[in-house]
Amino acid sequence: MDYAQESLKKHYEWNGKIEMICRAPLKTREDLSLAYTPGVAQPCLEIQKDVNKSFELTRRSNLVAVVTDGTAVLGLGDIGPEAGMPVMEGKCALFKTFGDVDAIPLCVRSKDVDEIVNTIRLLAGSFGGINLEDISAPRCFEIERKLKACCDIPIFHDDQHGTAVVTLAAMLNALKLTGKKLDEIRVVTSGAGAAGIAIIKLLIALGLKDVIMCDRHGAIYQGRDGLNKEKEEMAAITNHEKRSGSLADMLKGADVFIGVSAPNCVTAEMVKSMNKDPILFPMANPTPEIMPDIALAAGAAVVGTGRSDFPNQINNVLAFPGIFRGALDVRASDINDEMKIAAAYAIAGFVSDDKLSADYIIPSALDRNVASAVAKAVAEAARKSGVARI
Amino acid sequence: MDYAQESLKKHYEWNGKIEMICRAPLKTREDLSLAYTPGVAQPCLEIQKDVNKSFELTRRSNLVAVVTDGTAVLGLGDIGPEAGMPVMEGKCALFKTFGDVDAIPLCVRSKDVDEIVNTIRLLAGSFGGINLEDISAPRCFEIERKLKACCDIPIFHDDQHGTAVVTLAAMLNALKLTGKKLDEIRVVTSGAGAAGIAIIKLLIALGLKDVIMCDRHGAIYQGRDGLNKEKEEMAAITNHEKRSGSLADMLKGADVFIGVSAPNCVTAEMVKSMNKDPILFPMANPTPEIMPDIALAAGAAVVGTGRSDFPNQINNVLAFPGIFRGALDVRASDINDEMKIAAAYAIAGFVSDDKLSADYIIPSALDRNVASAVAKAVAEAARKSGVARI
Repeated sequence: MDYAQESLKKHYEWNGKIEMICRAPLKTREDLSLAYTPGVAQPCLEIQKDVNKSFELTRRSNLVAVVTDGTAVLGLGDIGPEAGMPVMEGKCALFKTFGDVDAIPLCVRSKDVDEIVNTIRLLAGSFGGINLEDISAPRCFEIERKLKACCDIPIFHDDQHGTAVVTLAAMLNALKLTGKKLDEIRVVTSGAGAAGIAIIKLLIALGLKDVIMCDRHGAIYQGRDGLNKEKEEMAAITNHEKRSGSLADMLKGADVFIGVSAPNCVTAEMVKSMNKDPILFPMANPTPEIMPDIALAAGAAVVGTGRSDFPNQINNVLAFPGIFRGALDVRASDINDEMKIAAAYAIAGFVSDDKLSADYIIPSALDRNVASAVAKAVAEAARKSGVARI
Repeated sequence: MDYAQESLKKHYEWNGKIEMICRAPLKTREDLSLAYTPGVAQPCLEIQKDVNKSFELTRRSNLVAVVTDGTAVLGLGDIGPEAGMPVMEGKCALFKTFGDVDAIPLCVRSKDVDEIVNTIRLLAGSFGGINLEDISAPRCFEIERKLKACCDIPIFHDDQHGTAVVTLAAMLNALKLTGKKLDEIRVVTSGAGAAGIAIIKLLIALGLKDVIMCDRHGAIYQGRDGLNKEKEEMAAITNHEKRSGSLADMLKGADVFIGVSAPNCVTAEMVKSMNKDPILFPMANPTPEIMPDIALAAGAAVVGTGRSDFPNQINNVLAFPGIFRGALDVRASDINDEMKIAAAYAIAGFVSDDKLSADYIIPSALDRNVASAVAKAVAEAARKSGVARI
């Protein structure tokens, strides 16, 4: 199927992939008097007395804003805020379908970090959470950091943390399958953008010790010229031997490859140079860093990609609906590492030991039961880590 | 019924009066590929080429933001942004039920005019229109003026213009019933806030010549001490004889009283002092400037209030859903006087001549057919006045 043209046709037909509906009856005078004036004054006054009541008396407890500035939309880059909206609407549709989370798309006509932060900050009282989406690095880091500091609801940049959670879930099962341990393996990435950094930070939080991140110039190490602030931070906590060299150099003897970069930058030869039973997650979309058949023929034990037409699709939709569902359910003030790790274990746990195989390390993106299990685990982790408010 | 307690109970049950749903199927891999990646890239690229396509390829063409800062909520005053949300949600529910307009509530945590303007301006690409709500005067005037100057979608402060349209509709039929003409009558208001000013401006646009606005200090006239900018502007186009005095003084010989002020400030004696067959619209809520039975006993020919338990309820819900429906249908860049006047005539036209009476000058707020007639008239007026874009 020509997805491009068929999708365009469908988008014209749908005229929007989301729609707001009314939950309160509005047929009689009495209905109007209860849902609107004069009755509505009473819930207003209750919230005035205690602003937390806004979570109970309005839709806030179930409402998330999906916010973009349109600067890093899919693989398309900086296409502008309005042009990013079909993706944001798609995200909102997934939120509802998989997590029963009401989500509304907001595109911000600014690329200025402080303008974007201010816009979201001033609206935070309308929502139970904020999902940042498709904002280019390194601005996305600063926007998220500043928003977390000034907002009393969870701020979650899905391109970073959603990807990190699902990659961790796939990794947990791939390690189980190959009998390797997180604190003993060497991980090498291609890509040190938002997703790559978030993945490695989460893996380190869970015990990974030996990791080298590569960008288009090769290995990232402390003291390398031209590193931005985020890469400098990563250089300080990765590549402890300060090795320099190409991606091919780094992959020699590595156990795991994580690709969040560009098509076809990994060859069969590189796979052959890796440690025994290598795990490869070439997640560049739509064309991976190496095609699964080539990687497997070269000796890969497990391969996961971002694509739905190969086994082991590492798809964020396994994470974000359940993560927000869980965070909203306990009115969390934050989505922290504990909650992300709990989400990854819940996703990984969906693959039972007797079914675990090289072709099945992660549940299907279409499995509607994943989100509720993730939500439960996330809510529990929120309680244990002290960010739950109910 | 105790509306306050019953409404509060219902609000806890509803847990939000609105809900976002999904319009696109998301059951199969193919569904995901069309509504989301990889297919969604194509509609994104179409919008990048022509930003107007965002109205066709996303929900933007049917989506309105209902925005407040919580400073003038109902009769409750400045109760804060979150506390205003039950009203905003109610408004969104009415938008959907009566106009099939998808509306989302946004509360802004700021009272600063420029901060509010900036927040809305930066989000304008997400919506087909902006409904401002319950923002205190005189800030509401400045916010609306600045937004109109910088946004390419309609900006409509319902407390001003919705009220003005419905009042004009009631007035048209009341004049017909009493055989009076707009350019021959004297109108006196009690109240010179957002609603009062908008009503009088619209009546003047349609031909009213003789009008005196009163605030709590009495008649407003050019040169009176302590007038704010908006009242000064009104003084310049009303009260041509620069009369000073109390509301009671002004009402002597007047044909029409419009009340958007405080309870019980008009007496039977004042009604008796008015011209023959006086028309009274005491719209203060919940207690009008004069109760209808007192006004009628004192000789009023027609009385309309804001209340649903008396005849002739002058209720904004007759106007805003149809006005936005019509504006969205032709992708209007503005909601101008021509469109507001067309809306008023459409509402007034719903009362046929053979049914027109002192107890029936305006259709029921529950009549679901009004909005579509209003929409049609508004869309036509938008085309004629050059603000329609399709």
